[in-house]
Amino acid sequence: MKTFDEITQIVSSELDKINWTKEPRGLYEPIGYVLSMGGKRIRPALALMACNLFSDDVTPAIQSALGLEVFHNFTLLHDDIMDRADVRRGRPTVHKKWNDNTAILSGDVMQIASYQLVANTPAKYLKPVLDLFSKTAAEICEGQQYDVDFENRDEVKAEEYLEMIRLKTAVLLGCALKTGAWIGGAGEEDAQNLYDFGINIGLAFQLKDDLLDVYGDEATFGKKIGGDILCNKKTFMLIHALELAKGSDAEELQKWLKISDENLSEAKIEAVTSLFNKLGVKAICEDKMQFFYTKAIANLENVTVLDNKKHELRKLADKLMSRND
Amino acid sequence: MKTFDEITQIVSSELDKINWTKEPRGLYEPIGYVLSMGGKRIRPALALMACNLFSDDVTPAIQSALGLEVFHNFTLLHDDIMDRADVRRGRPTVHKKWNDNTAILSGDVMQIASYQLVANTPAKYLKPVLDLFSKTAAEICEGQQYDVDFENRDEVKAEEYLEMIRLKTAVLLGCALKTGAWIGGAGEEDAQNLYDFGINIGLAFQLKDDLLDVYGDEATFGKKIGGDILCNKKTFMLIHALELAKGSDAEELQKWLKISDENLSEAKIEAVTSLFNKLGVKAICEDKMQFFYTKAIANLENVTVLDNKKHELRKLADKLMSRND
Repeated sequence: MKTFDEITQIVSSELDKINWTKEPRGLYEPIGYVLSMGGKRIRPALALMACNLFSDDVTPAIQSALGLEVFHNFTLLHDDIMDRADVRRGRPTVHKKWNDNTAILSGDVMQIASYQLVANTPAKYLKPVLDLFSKTAAEICEGQQYDVDFENRDEVKAEEYLEMIRLKTAVLLGCALKTGAWIGGAGEEDAQNLYDFGINIGLAFQLKDDLLDVYGDEATFGKKIGGDILCNKKTFMLIHALELAKGSDAEELQKWLKISDENLSEAKIEAVTSLFNKLGVKAICEDKMQFFYTKAIANLENVTVLDNKKHELRKLADKLMSRND
Repeated sequence: MKTFDEITQIVSSELDKINWTKEPRGLYEPIGYVLSMGGKRIRPALALMACNLFSDDVTPAIQSALGLEVFHNFTLLHDDIMDRADVRRGRPTVHKKWNDNTAILSGDVMQIASYQLVANTPAKYLKPVLDLFSKTAAEICEGQQYDVDFENRDEVKAEEYLEMIRLKTAVLLGCALKTGAWIGGAGEEDAQNLYDFGINIGLAFQLKDDLLDVYGDEATFGKKIGGDILCNKKTFMLIHALELAKGSDAEELQKWLKISDENLSEAKIEAVTSLFNKLGVKAICEDKMQFFYTKAIANLENVTVLDNKKHELRKLADKLMSRND
């Protein structure tokens, strides 16, 4: 069995082999730029680790795994245009460094590149892998659309939020695991259990992200703390806070939601965080995260390979839950 | 053999069967809107006609043919954002009717939808069809990038322009024909001859478009005449005019290229058109169009099916060359 580090080393070195310095430069250069920003490479790692559960040789899954990583980075590229985000991983985003049109068109060809990589799936598995990939890709767009829709809605239910993050984040982890499992030769039930493991880890992962956005440490998190609070993002915690706050707490929360004055940013973050603490929504979010994590571990238990083979996936799941960045 | 009209009827009715009224509405509604705008449906028609050369039953090629049409319309959607075009086929474009973010995201999922349709290619042909489709899709993005690059360059050679329109327009016609031919059971040489037929018809088609943009009739063309002249688009005609104009003609051409005053639009169109006539670049463009048309017909001749089977494709090629819209 390969360790997570060995797996990510394979991913990095294979990703580096793809040539983005071709013509026209204006089209392909931004792709190389985006991919050089790094990232955890969790999706291709999950694909190869799932493959490795059933096969010593993970080579047949590499191209499809890279396709998922290129697709993920494409979604970041286009999301950054839509969110008018100027910085990612400490560097200017593509639409900032170049312009919107470049970001749109390079993103488009990046999506095509992800399909070209996925198309290198071994023939026997090509059709199901391709169909799952397209279904997943469409779901990610649907998740992004719901995310945008929720911004303009007064009320969003916790369940709707969870469905949105399932689409926007979790399905690609599930897709990576199932794809790797299939190519490794897994049976349908094992592949489905790994898919469900990915969904539940993905949901827990996103709730962790929401928690870090409020309670994280700026230096290690790599983003400004309180970003979600400042833009009134209807996260799992804010949705619950809006439900639970009564009387003066409700009034205070509503007051801060109406404030967008940049001079009051620090005060707003502090006040809303205090309300979150008082209302116990941090604990509610942590409990929900734990709930999905426990479900994920149960899904992994159900996979019919020797228990010690699952060690690395379990370790990775733990790491994603206890991470600070 | 099915006639072109019979073929386009199949395309229309099959395209109408796809459901775009699903959730989230904000994501899928613009796709239905774009496809309802109509268009000549030339790409799927070419695919089915090529299939029909080798097989009475064109059903196996329908899904892939629709994928090409959806992809084509996706490129129009994203191109319209980049070109800040507000109107297409007499109706507001998606980014105008909704907004840029909607146009970006709906376009993204439209590209995925085109892959989902192409993935329904019969298993035997899936891999080559998929690879050709991705290669073609990337080439179209490359063509668009060169188109943008040329705007910011002082000098563009006629050859470079032809390569740009080959990528931006012709390869998708070639791809449609080759895909249909493969699925119909064609041998490699016939499929390649049909691909080349598509490339040459595509080049002639675009030169015809350039001619119509200057010499067309506004009512039938459906767009304002002189649009290319007003934005100094380095078309085949302008490139040649810049090469051929000497002395006072050159001075006058340069003078008009510097003028962007909207009050002088009519005068600019008239003056540049007169220079085109004087310099004979209309005839040069028509000759080049004829050159590619002749090559296309020769490619079609080389396809090893009974001559009368090629009648409809020849008629369509004629129609595209003599069209006024």
